[in-house]
Amino acid sequence: MRLALKLADRGAFTTAPNPRVGCVIANGDLLLGQGWHEWAGQAHAEVNALREAGVDARGATAYVTLEPCGGHGRTPPCADALIKAGVARVVIASVDRSQHEHHGVERLEAAGVQVEHLPCPEARELNQGFFSRTERKRPWLRIKLAMSLDGRTALGNGQSKWITSPEARDDVQVWRARACAVLTGSGTLLADNPRLTVRLPDPHTAFSAPLRVVLDQHLKGDANAHVLDGAAPTLVFHGPGAQPSHPPPAGVRFRQVGLDGEGLDLRQVMTVLAEEGCNEVQVEAGPVLCAAFAAAGLVDEWLVYIAPMFLGSDARPLLALDGLTDLGQAQRLSIIEQCLVGADIRVRLRPVSALA
Amino acid sequence: MRLALKLADRGAFTTAPNPRVGCVIANGDLLLGQGWHEWAGQAHAEVNALREAGVDARGATAYVTLEPCGGHGRTPPCADALIKAGVARVVIASVDRSQHEHHGVERLEAAGVQVEHLPCPEARELNQGFFSRTERKRPWLRIKLAMSLDGRTALGNGQSKWITSPEARDDVQVWRARACAVLTGSGTLLADNPRLTVRLPDPHTAFSAPLRVVLDQHLKGDANAHVLDGAAPTLVFHGPGAQPSHPPPAGVRFRQVGLDGEGLDLRQVMTVLAEEGCNEVQVEAGPVLCAAFAAAGLVDEWLVYIAPMFLGSDARPLLALDGLTDLGQAQRLSIIEQCLVGADIRVRLRPVSALA
Repeated sequence: MRLALKLADRGAFTTAPNPRVGCVIANGDLLLGQGWHEWAGQAHAEVNALREAGVDARGATAYVTLEPCGGHGRTPPCADALIKAGVARVVIASVDRSQHEHHGVERLEAAGVQVEHLPCPEARELNQGFFSRTERKRPWLRIKLAMSLDGRTALGNGQSKWITSPEARDDVQVWRARACAVLTGSGTLLADNPRLTVRLPDPHTAFSAPLRVVLDQHLKGDANAHVLDGAAPTLVFHGPGAQPSHPPPAGVRFRQVGLDGEGLDLRQVMTVLAEEGCNEVQVEAGPVLCAAFAAAGLVDEWLVYIAPMFLGSDARPLLALDGLTDLGQAQRLSIIEQCLVGADIRVRLRPVSALA
Repeated sequence: MRLALKLADRGAFTTAPNPRVGCVIANGDLLLGQGWHEWAGQAHAEVNALREAGVDARGATAYVTLEPCGGHGRTPPCADALIKAGVARVVIASVDRSQHEHHGVERLEAAGVQVEHLPCPEARELNQGFFSRTERKRPWLRIKLAMSLDGRTALGNGQSKWITSPEARDDVQVWRARACAVLTGSGTLLADNPRLTVRLPDPHTAFSAPLRVVLDQHLKGDANAHVLDGAAPTLVFHGPGAQPSHPPPAGVRFRQVGLDGEGLDLRQVMTVLAEEGCNEVQVEAGPVLCAAFAAAGLVDEWLVYIAPMFLGSDARPLLALDGLTDLGQAQRLSIIEQCLVGADIRVRLRPVSALA
């Protein structure tokens, strides 16, 4: 199963909106076949592994990181492929509730295949985005922040290029590549005019280009913004009353959502992105939008780069969050990883409540 | 030498104002004696190791982490003890310039002992405080900070107990125990009334109580402040014109220093503390005093605890530092260590210029 998890991870940049899945066919200690799901629309992990195992799959065990699909999607159901190949036993590391209506596991058992569940935290972790979308009907939301040691994202005059090291900025690209969408707000659009495309350190690495998402309530964004350049699909959310003043360029769509208080309804935005097939969404925005996502309880993970410098008390704050009068009101986070990336520290945190 | 360095570190809490020193006497692979310096006024590392080696020391090699002393202090010179024991070779991991006037190494060589220098960064590191005091005539200054992930030390209303975890607060005590002095300002004195004593997690660990130092320019500090309770020696620096209104309690001294700009002359404070025999000074103060030490270029190390929570943009800033208009003006720091302590991250940083 360890190998199957490793295989699954090879699809980290490419399987979306499908889950990352790995499969190993073995007979005792004898490895017969291995496969992983690479691109949506192409063969699933089980089929790739069965192909490698050939006739040896008969009587063997299939280790799959995710419950095999039972329904016809763009490819035939894997449950049936496993039955047809004569596999004797299927070990499953995580359950896929979105497939339960297709009764794949029941068909396996009816065909005499022994099905074992071996719940594995790593298998859930691998597809937190997919599980979030299919189970919670909203994407897994990761907020990326880059700051100085004293929690500042830019000098008072706005200068922020660059606080973090080139290695940290490359690392951000890798996290973007894992995401189905990279989201920003109109403030960052106007201040930094980001491209929100993926520029991986190794240009030969394949990835599925994330959707670029802009929250621009009043459509203040510049028509010459990089995000409208057609380099990747783009979705611009705006509020009621705002009208795109120009026909959308190729690859750009506009979508109206309602308001929640003074800003766009972020839950509605998340629902739309789930419907768009987004598993993981990476937010790279300013202090106001990031704080709004946090206040709405929509943040699943913080990805924070801390640069070893002090910018001072007149520099820009990390989050536009105020009014705390007791430390008990601060949301409890838990550090799930911390390491050095170049000259900087990378910290990943999750709300304590989400870790259960 | 690795063993000698380990032995030396056993004196981390106790040798001040003396250096931490370890010594191993060996003949080839045969370990004959080991020793370390534990308390000022008691036997030095070499003498302890020679005592264990006994007559076997004749013809053997002594590995010492610091150049053996050549002068009579509270104990006789180690150079002479090594000669008398008949040691054939002395390997030295770091040079002690404060001993050069006593010509200990010359005496060793004149007596036919082979002296080898094996410069070792760990040996310098072990005694940065001692080297700072004896070579730069000022203590090694470490600033301890405890903050939220967004760089805040307290809520807007001042509440700060507790941002960091109990494990992090215990860890601070260990760093205090290493220091010869723990320093704070009148602002912290009035706001938090700290004890500045050492409460080690293991109450059986021996340590030499650090001097408590308060910078209180106008002597605004309360007569009932814990630092005046006599639990440890205390030194209060004040500016010209301020007069202690009451006779100092037992163990408390007052010392006037000049001004540098609007505050006390911090370089003068450091000089006095060096004269007091302080090797390492740990600053646990507020944003104004910490920023003043940084601005004066007196900070050798930052010891920062980062708690996994956000306190918001109206919470108290880490440093009262402002006016930066270009990122190039920010002092370059380098992360020399980062790790988890309890639920928090501990980061140690040094100015890049100090690493040469």
